[in-house]
Amino acid sequence: MLDYSASAQSMRSSEIRRLMKLAADPSVISFSGGMPGTALLPVKIVDELFGALTSREREAALQYGPTSGYPPLIESLSAYLTSRGISLSGQELIITSGGQQAINLVSKVLIDPGDLVVTENPSFIGALAAFMSFQAHLVGVPLDEEGISIPGLQKVFDERLAQIKMLYLNPVFQNPSGVTYSEARKKALLEKLGGRAFCTIEDDPYSELYFDDRDKPLVTPLKAMASPELPICYIGSFAKIFGPGFRLGWLLGPQELVDKCELAKQSMDACSSTLSQVLAHAYLSKGKLPGFLASVRPVYGRKAGIMLKSLADSMPEGVTWTQPRGGFYIWVTLPESMDATRVFNEAIKKQAAFVIGNAFDPYGVKNNCFRLSFAHTPEEKIEQGVKIIAEAIRNTPNR
Amino acid sequence: MLDYSASAQSMRSSEIRRLMKLAADPSVISFSGGMPGTALLPVKIVDELFGALTSREREAALQYGPTSGYPPLIESLSAYLTSRGISLSGQELIITSGGQQAINLVSKVLIDPGDLVVTENPSFIGALAAFMSFQAHLVGVPLDEEGISIPGLQKVFDERLAQIKMLYLNPVFQNPSGVTYSEARKKALLEKLGGRAFCTIEDDPYSELYFDDRDKPLVTPLKAMASPELPICYIGSFAKIFGPGFRLGWLLGPQELVDKCELAKQSMDACSSTLSQVLAHAYLSKGKLPGFLASVRPVYGRKAGIMLKSLADSMPEGVTWTQPRGGFYIWVTLPESMDATRVFNEAIKKQAAFVIGNAFDPYGVKNNCFRLSFAHTPEEKIEQGVKIIAEAIRNTPNR
Repeated sequence: MLDYSASAQSMRSSEIRRLMKLAADPSVISFSGGMPGTALLPVKIVDELFGALTSREREAALQYGPTSGYPPLIESLSAYLTSRGISLSGQELIITSGGQQAINLVSKVLIDPGDLVVTENPSFIGALAAFMSFQAHLVGVPLDEEGISIPGLQKVFDERLAQIKMLYLNPVFQNPSGVTYSEARKKALLEKLGGRAFCTIEDDPYSELYFDDRDKPLVTPLKAMASPELPICYIGSFAKIFGPGFRLGWLLGPQELVDKCELAKQSMDACSSTLSQVLAHAYLSKGKLPGFLASVRPVYGRKAGIMLKSLADSMPEGVTWTQPRGGFYIWVTLPESMDATRVFNEAIKKQAAFVIGNAFDPYGVKNNCFRLSFAHTPEEKIEQGVKIIAEAIRNTPNR
Repeated sequence: MLDYSASAQSMRSSEIRRLMKLAADPSVISFSGGMPGTALLPVKIVDELFGALTSREREAALQYGPTSGYPPLIESLSAYLTSRGISLSGQELIITSGGQQAINLVSKVLIDPGDLVVTENPSFIGALAAFMSFQAHLVGVPLDEEGISIPGLQKVFDERLAQIKMLYLNPVFQNPSGVTYSEARKKALLEKLGGRAFCTIEDDPYSELYFDDRDKPLVTPLKAMASPELPICYIGSFAKIFGPGFRLGWLLGPQELVDKCELAKQSMDACSSTLSQVLAHAYLSKGKLPGFLASVRPVYGRKAGIMLKSLADSMPEGVTWTQPRGGFYIWVTLPESMDATRVFNEAIKKQAAFVIGNAFDPYGVKNNCFRLSFAHTPEEKIEQGVKIIAEAIRNTPNR
């Protein structure tokens, strides 16, 4: 039952929903949605893949599939993960209804009310909501430009290690900050995690979206670097490398845990859309992914560049922001005394929008910051939107 | 966390999965799966609908949609439900990832560990698993040929009314029994429910699949007959009227409750497949449903007829079965002293399979019964499969 944490979540969620609704007005220049640009959806590829399905595949697409996933997709996805340097040996891989469901399944299996879930601060709103819906207690560890703070993590270990059930991380092009862990930070983190029994969730939806091919080494998953004994659940998604509308993700992790997740999925939605899975398998097995990624990476890079330049050109003194090397997001920090909701209320008058910072704070409090997504906004509107927000900041009185 | 009830569920579930795996061997004549016949999937209709999508719809299909559902589908589905005699006034309708997710969402919102959920006995395995995953206590009320036993229900009310959180019913062409509530039973039931505060879930995936048009009055939903104040959650599915592979269902119920379910869905899978929803909307709005149903109803009716005749021809004395007027299932009852798992073990040697009765017993015990599904088995194999099972019954010693 959704009780105390849910009602806090519900209040925050309803405030955020109110702001998101305002941002959804088509006349608003919105940097709110964490979704691909419409022009970057693989409409033609899907047409082609659909047209080339065999009659057997067409039938399979309309029928139930195994809860663990459409077997040919499990196979083509395994090949993809192997190509990313991830060993599947001793691990179990299941298809989920988006990365969101993978997070929810691990939470359902592991979290008892009151258990500690440690996250980056700021962290992904959908994960926070899932953890809270199982009545977890959230502990946020600060994120700096190289990743989660190791002293910050050590402090939680020192004080509350026994109560930690999960550590949730999004190490590459993080949502909402755009931060990517440095190699040194990843190594220090893995060292710190060595021998720990709690489950680490590595959520990795954005890592294929680097702007510059030379940054490819940056996106190596923790799962590919870690010792096989470390209980890491590696979660990925087709949302940003194919399309969100398929609602497909995956969960790769220790066999026993993922088997329990499969059991939980059985009573959650029986299986993920087979239609989506048949198309995702065709997409991977026909080698369409690399070409698609090559076509979208420079576009996202250009959008990010325009946004970064606009921020540099128009933001008042005292405002800082991150420098993403991929993904969808830039994180803007205002002077301590300012409140992002008040800035939002100013900006929306002139029809620009973003997501306020406290949505991403595990404690739901810190709000002198906000998330800009450049992914969905048409290029030619980015500068204007940023200017409106800069103006709104100037017009917002301090608290 | 999945604990005590989950481990019971897990044990039963792993036994059932073991039997289902045996049944999945393609050389086995299987009456196990509750899924449409492959030849009855609307492959051509989907090709046609996909080909006719506008470029706007193609884009929408690949993008995120609102958690509550793709708005045009909400509209076309509302029209469909209205045509089924259901009033939407004061109610909230959301799209779910199959009927299974709708059951799960209501459970997530309502069930605290130890709460009572009352079900028919036998009842749908997927619902039982969902309730148990939230640590509900299950109470089964016997089902007779006219529906749930009213004295049986009264007994639970007399003894434990205050602890009841939910009543779960599948009144039309019930899974697993094939039983349909008589009009008199529905009225008696609604009278008994009048003024009760607990939530009634009416799960209604099969009602469009009557074999004979004259039976149409039988399939009127409780939701269409009940007073608007009665808290009934009406759950439906596209699995049997379009295709399971879309993974689409719906939940219609009291606004406040369904709003909470929407919030829970947000952290469960964010939204259901938009690709599926765009196609389901095209299917409904282009009027394809009635023609499809008209084409499959006689086929299911014929299959049921063959199975009923085969049962009459081959079953030994003391074995009884239900007479479905629609849907997918026949429920077979063996003499008290017999055990369906032992019959299964005999039948599978000769390559015929079904689902054992205790899978559907809320207490996981009663096993002198089993479910036959005629929906997925090729017509020409039904008689042979039933003969094998009849022979297996003859060869199974009593306990």
